[in-house]
Amino acid sequence: MSENQDQLKAAAAESAAARVTDGMIVGLGSGSTAALAVSALGRRVGGGLHITGIPTSEATAAQAKALGIPLTTLAEVSSIDMTIDGADEVEQGSLDLIKGLGGALLREKLVATATKALVIVADSSKLVTHLGARDPIPVEVVPFGWESTAARLAGLGAAPTLRRNTMREVFVTDGGHYILDCRFGSIASAEVLASELDHVVGVVEHGLFIGMTSEVHLAGADGVRVMKRRFERR
Amino acid sequence: MSENQDQLKAAAAESAAARVTDGMIVGLGSGSTAALAVSALGRRVGGGLHITGIPTSEATAAQAKALGIPLTTLAEVSSIDMTIDGADEVEQGSLDLIKGLGGALLREKLVATATKALVIVADSSKLVTHLGARDPIPVEVVPFGWESTAARLAGLGAAPTLRRNTMREVFVTDGGHYILDCRFGSIASAEVLASELDHVVGVVEHGLFIGMTSEVHLAGADGVRVMKRRFERR
Repeated sequence: MSENQDQLKAAAAESAAARVTDGMIVGLGSGSTAALAVSALGRRVGGGLHITGIPTSEATAAQAKALGIPLTTLAEVSSIDMTIDGADEVEQGSLDLIKGLGGALLREKLVATATKALVIVADSSKLVTHLGARDPIPVEVVPFGWESTAARLAGLGAAPTLRRNTMREVFVTDGGHYILDCRFGSIASAEVLASELDHVVGVVEHGLFIGMTSEVHLAGADGVRVMKRRFERR
Repeated sequence: MSENQDQLKAAAAESAAARVTDGMIVGLGSGSTAALAVSALGRRVGGGLHITGIPTSEATAAQAKALGIPLTTLAEVSSIDMTIDGADEVEQGSLDLIKGLGGALLREKLVATATKALVIVADSSKLVTHLGARDPIPVEVVPFGWESTAARLAGLGAAPTLRRNTMREVFVTDGGHYILDCRFGSIASAEVLASELDHVVGVVEHGLFIGMTSEVHLAGADGVRVMKRRFERR
């Protein structure tokens, strides 16, 4: 990514962070784009904004602490006012998402689910016409009998690959689970697929975030565009 | 339970174990009733039956090993011919189950899901008209933000209680999760509830086993009764 593109993404992160107001409880996403938004929030906190953050990964917690953002946990709050996070794919129109290629999908989904407004920061390369045509859908599964769970996912039309780290060891999530990256080729309905994945025994969570996004701050060649969902969040 | 009742339960376990035939891959359930069936299988293996067992808990694995039952894992087989297990509640007619009061629900469900025939051993005190009127439904959840998940379960009508061990410490499952024992009072449709529970973010698995049972070997006052499901397994 060029320096100019980096600047545009930082501008989108800044635009998302500007949506946060005094006194909010704010979910803090994980990954490189979310980190830009956490930086922007840190600057605002330095300037006198009072917020309490709920991090979605250890890395984000460390970054927020270093920036002086006070933190709490999901256990301590009944709901979260706003969460700012990145995404791997954003579907035009619906603003439905694929998340979890970075490995933090479970905590990100738990935080997003407890959130009133989910604000996504992305660059225009993440915008797609149909979810899943380009990227696999990360599916977090129970290690016990994962091969059997993979076979059930294949029965839904997926080509599952067990995620490994750069050392070729099986990647283990913060929650102690494995991830099967599932290519589905073309997906008729992401909403129907999400429901089917929920029902698969052995699946802890999956990377389809359906009907959750409030708005997307998108870094494009010509600046930052804010896209809002056209209907109410369920 | 009286000595006579113990004998009847052992007879039901024997009756279930008699359904196993040479060469089968057999899922081995967990809990005191399943242990009787594992004992019965051990005697048959001692008498020359060749089977391979897949245990659903460490305790069952230890028992089976001691009895000389050869073991394998879910990873090594494409499907399981028959699984023999206990249950906390068995619904008349449907033979749908509540399982997991013993804490092994996730592995038991993973094994049951990969199984062609699920054979349940129970005494008649487990037979109910409607699931969930007497016992809570165990729901295995991700520890991160479990309070938030409990609130979502309450939104479905449950009164969730975090399971603790006899030392009052939070009970942690083999998979590293917590269990919320969820009393629902009256349940209109266990099948609908099972589907709703599948969709709750933070839920790993739940103790409703719908449409999975092939037959139940029930120890009653007048002997062992074998009940079969009246329709095909889905």
